Amino acid sequence: MSKRLQKPFPALYPVPVTLITCLGSEGEPNVFTASWVGTVSSSPPQVAISVRPYRYSHVAIEQTGEFVINIPDESLLRAVDVCGHISKARADKFAMTGLTLMPASQLKTPLVAECPVNIECQVVQKISLDSHDLFVSKIIAVHVDEALLDEAGFIDYSRTRPIAYLGNEYWGLGQRLNTSGFFRRETR
Amino acid sequence: MSKRLQKPFPALYPVPVTLITCLGSEGEPNVFTASWVGTVSSSPPQVAISVRPYRYSHVAIEQTGEFVINIPDESLLRAVDVCGHISKARADKFAMTGLTLMPASQLKTPLVAECPVNIECQVVQKISLDSHDLFVSKIIAVHVDEALLDEAGFIDYSRTRPIAYLGNEYWGLGQRLNTSGFFRRETR
Repeated sequence: MSKRLQKPFPALYPVPVTLITCLGSEGEPNVFTASWVGTVSSSPPQVAISVRPYRYSHVAIEQTGEFVINIPDESLLRAVDVCGHISKARADKFAMTGLTLMPASQLKTPLVAECPVNIECQVVQKISLDSHDLFVSKIIAVHVDEALLDEAGFIDYSRTRPIAYLGNEYWGLGQRLNTSGFFRRETR
Repeated sequence: MSKRLQKPFPALYPVPVTLITCLGSEGEPNVFTASWVGTVSSSPPQVAISVRPYRYSHVAIEQTGEFVINIPDESLLRAVDVCGHISKARADKFAMTGLTLMPASQLKTPLVAECPVNIECQVVQKISLDSHDLFVSKIIAVHVDEALLDEAGFIDYSRTRPIAYLGNEYWGLGQRLNTSGFFRRETR
């Protein structure tokens, strides 16, 4: 395998595609698309999300200390694309996309009703990183569409159809390849 | 859509599957599997990776201030699984998996030769988050397999076949759904 050396760029793939909801200073909801989101700890469960300081939503998240990660499926791709390219200052994204809201359990920030999984997050700390600020946040509740759950109450990922982001492309998931730890079962 | 409220857990999906290389205190290389990795800023390009403090690799990354994110493809799934479940203290993971190393351009830490993309990272800060520490790191070089590049020198993601992690399952990617900003072209 021959490799070409390239200048630094955000080369990591595949990254998750999510819709983030937050609340403006007058309680008005907003939604935007984010893929620079990651899990950062297990106990307590925490995530981190990067947001540009000049974004409308940055002020909202900083002021309220909360946001919701909503995980869309492929059927919401057009809404995802709109919410990644349109600013709240210029258009009503809910009217443009048909996305609707439902109340959270712990936060004032609402959930996107059409997303099958919603993760309520409370900001713990903000870390400034030049172009972006990183909000490290505790997960305080998770909502899952009943239709995704198997008989034991676990998520059946074959029903989820999430969207991954590679470069500037949206990709669907393919096949389940295996479960973690499979090599142990093979070598027994 | 009826939703079930669940207790907090690390619910984000799909997340990337990567192999991280680092160097021990006597210069011996190690490799481990990580999916709690994310892009956190664009200028400069930075990533963050979460590592448990008691891990062998945590000491290594802390002492050297560097690591490499190696992005595997589906052909490396077994190696990925081994490197996620075996500690360096207990086995030679390179012998177990057949993974080989090649020199980086800027770091002492080597790259996994078989991974088509390698991202050289220099730690900028460590943030302690209870179960894990978060290493925020600058990307200082990227290596890409020539076979992935199109005629213009960009990555053709249809050739990459990366692995995503959902719950405790490894998944392949499916179809490219669209490119970012497609709704604008549709509505013109």
